Amino acid sequence: MRKILMLTALLLMAVVMSAAELKPVKYVFLFIGDGMSIPQRMLIDNYRKITHGEPAYINRMPYAAITTTSSASAFITDSAASGTAIACGEKTKNGRIGMNTAGDKDLFSVATHAKQNGRKVGIVSSVTLNHATPASFYGHRQNRGQYYEIGLDLVASEFDYFAGGGISKHNDTGNEAFRGDIYDLAAQGGYHVIEISSGGRAAFDALAPGEGKVLASIGGDMALPYVIDNLKCEVPSLAEFVAKGIELLDNPKGFFMMVEGGMIDWCGHANDAGTMLGEVAAFDDAVKVAKAFADKHPEETLIVVTGDHETGGLTLGFANSGYQSKIDLLKEQRCSSVIFARKVTEFFKTKPQASFEDIQPLVTENFGLKFTAGKDDPMLLTKGEKEKLQAAFDKHVAALKEAAEKKTRMRGNPFASAVMQVMNSKAGLGWASGDHTALPVNTTADGVQAEAFSGMIDNTDIAKKLKQMVR
Amino acid sequence: MRKILMLTALLLMAVVMSAAELKPVKYVFLFIGDGMSIPQRMLIDNYRKITHGEPAYINRMPYAAITTTSSASAFITDSAASGTAIACGEKTKNGRIGMNTAGDKDLFSVATHAKQNGRKVGIVSSVTLNHATPASFYGHRQNRGQYYEIGLDLVASEFDYFAGGGISKHNDTGNEAFRGDIYDLAAQGGYHVIEISSGGRAAFDALAPGEGKVLASIGGDMALPYVIDNLKCEVPSLAEFVAKGIELLDNPKGFFMMVEGGMIDWCGHANDAGTMLGEVAAFDDAVKVAKAFADKHPEETLIVVTGDHETGGLTLGFANSGYQSKIDLLKEQRCSSVIFARKVTEFFKTKPQASFEDIQPLVTENFGLKFTAGKDDPMLLTKGEKEKLQAAFDKHVAALKEAAEKKTRMRGNPFASAVMQVMNSKAGLGWASGDHTALPVNTTADGVQAEAFSGMIDNTDIAKKLKQMVR
Repeated sequence: MRKILMLTALLLMAVVMSAAELKPVKYVFLFIGDGMSIPQRMLIDNYRKITHGEPAYINRMPYAAITTTSSASAFITDSAASGTAIACGEKTKNGRIGMNTAGDKDLFSVATHAKQNGRKVGIVSSVTLNHATPASFYGHRQNRGQYYEIGLDLVASEFDYFAGGGISKHNDTGNEAFRGDIYDLAAQGGYHVIEISSGGRAAFDALAPGEGKVLASIGGDMALPYVIDNLKCEVPSLAEFVAKGIELLDNPKGFFMMVEGGMIDWCGHANDAGTMLGEVAAFDDAVKVAKAFADKHPEETLIVVTGDHETGGLTLGFANSGYQSKIDLLKEQRCSSVIFARKVTEFFKTKPQASFEDIQPLVTENFGLKFTAGKDDPMLLTKGEKEKLQAAFDKHVAALKEAAEKKTRMRGNPFASAVMQVMNSKAGLGWASGDHTALPVNTTADGVQAEAFSGMIDNTDIAKKLKQMVR
Repeated sequence: MRKILMLTALLLMAVVMSAAELKPVKYVFLFIGDGMSIPQRMLIDNYRKITHGEPAYINRMPYAAITTTSSASAFITDSAASGTAIACGEKTKNGRIGMNTAGDKDLFSVATHAKQNGRKVGIVSSVTLNHATPASFYGHRQNRGQYYEIGLDLVASEFDYFAGGGISKHNDTGNEAFRGDIYDLAAQGGYHVIEISSGGRAAFDALAPGEGKVLASIGGDMALPYVIDNLKCEVPSLAEFVAKGIELLDNPKGFFMMVEGGMIDWCGHANDAGTMLGEVAAFDDAVKVAKAFADKHPEETLIVVTGDHETGGLTLGFANSGYQSKIDLLKEQRCSSVIFARKVTEFFKTKPQASFEDIQPLVTENFGLKFTAGKDDPMLLTKGEKEKLQAAFDKHVAALKEAAEKKTRMRGNPFASAVMQVMNSKAGLGWASGDHTALPVNTTADGVQAEAFSGMIDNTDIAKKLKQMVR
């Protein structure tokens, strides 16, 4: 009997699937981790297994598809071409936002389709809302650097909920297209504009269904702060932005929401694994908010989680860790590489004559790396590591001196960079690049028709499939 | 109507799948690429797209599951623990073959289950048949280095078809367990033993159904030659070994066949991408033989393709390639790093007073790297690359001199290693390690119940699922 049931089911599936048509789904979530490929996903997975005893949800969704990312112009994509591919379903040249390779035709995204079909649409990002990835869902510009113009596209989109980071170059008065601050134009266009960092948290919390269009950002041209830096500001987490979005967007015709974890990529560029952990964890938490909603609407919800490319050539379990995981040592890191670089710069400003010994407490305080300790202490620096830091210190001092003599600005931060390298080495991580790579990403899916995300797909397939589902 | 059909199908699937039981499948193929994770798979994919206009089949199977590989004792697994996990479905300590972590209990593989259930069983590998991966399907030893003892296990297995590489330490006379050459013991045990490199090719080709048990290897303790080295010997390709296996194993009760591409891993350890291309391509060709069989028996065949771990920390599209793919430049490579190292050694033996200029033709001849050429020639060495090779040449000469003086054997091959590094850099590839890493692998599947390999799984899940299918 079981056999007959199974065969009947398979037969019916075959008949239906052969039409290669997907049915509409009321609630569609698309989460994009910028610079998040398989190594980045596994970093958080292994860390959480050690620290929390359970893996990340994004890696435990029932379906997965290896997803190629190359753009029309390059083996290695940038976030504009990949954003456009994921959003619109067509390959384009690196740099383009919602336009074809020639730059003479607009491409339309799954978000635009959803809106045209009467659904509500939300766009959430931890970086600015006119940055390449979110921009690809509503913008049409030849160049991702046209932030102001993309801001105009944002206002013109009429999408229902923009939330997260601020607007890059929102008040670009020197731009010939300038016709007012983007925030003002949004307000004039009927958006309820909230700048959270300017005392808008209460207004954000008070947002309730029936508000009309909302632009709720951290304000200015800022991205959200890194989770690890734990700045005690009033900015909601990515998860809170998603939760509010669900509250505002839910309606009988359903919605489409795109959520970007935008700073995972920045951590990759900086080869900063400790900070990346916080960003991927926050992203995972945001996906879990959608999952909780899906659990209440299991017949009507699809959650898709992808990345736009890999950043950093991250290698898990570098051989110098003796085949053992030491990823948990990253918990000793107390601030992002950005903040640490600032602290190093500040240190030399206040103590220009400082010795290598003088700076050691700063290293220990921020990374847990110890210059003296019991030999079984995993954070004890080896002789080679100390020499590396000493050499970087000397190089840093020399560069400062040269910059002072030439009255130029010092480039780079040799000491801070060396500390990051030592931290990676301690944690058993290798990075092959400071840029993007062509490693495919992983697209995982849960919910209605999640099985459409299986095997190997191209990033353009994501839009092609989702457009059918937001009909 | 479509909607009703779909819902009925989904409902039936749910009812059946909820039992979490998989039905027997007549023909089950398990392909394992040793050291083959996602970057290694994509290397061949991108290369074939450039050179053949089509991707590799292993990457186009309809289902995929990201697969974690850590062993019971280490974050980074070795091939023994991962082989045992994939074969038997239990985590064990690095080094163990078909035994638990404590080393006091035998674990039994899907191959053994298949045999016990009356199926025929084949084990094929491009490396020796008692190497860690194939050994895990029939052996029970505390240490993967117990090659002779594992050879005894091979003979005792009664499996129907062993083919590919030879038997490591087959005539280990110093071993206290020694009781005869493994080849002789196999013959005494009823195996039709063929050593192909000793004129056995005709006998191999003549093998036909009804032969009884077969051990058809290249002979001795050899692995198959690297595809790139194109040694005009009589050894069948991995695909031919699989084709013969299908011919011999097919019977009304079905079969289980495990096929390993064993030298992909060695290329990873050597950071030798050009040689790896040939190995992964040969592996893909072998899978295609199974696919052709599956096309004739679509209702009765399952093909699963996995890797046991990543080797080398391979990064695709290193930033120094300007975001462009230059993987096609690898086609200029004419021999494996192993053969090239021998050529370099030979060169210095015959020309001990040679200059850097003298060795340049050897580099050009074997890798296509040019010391002088038009500036648009992608194989023209940059000034930095020439300097790197010159420095390695000097280091090599110095090391030779030191070894001669101390009457010791020179370790390593600095010049050959530098050429490999330059070749990788030209092709836009980075390697973070000379060892395994903990990057998960990708398991892809095609055929009956292929959907069981979806989402994220652990390597032990492969055995757990397959054991149900070989009932």
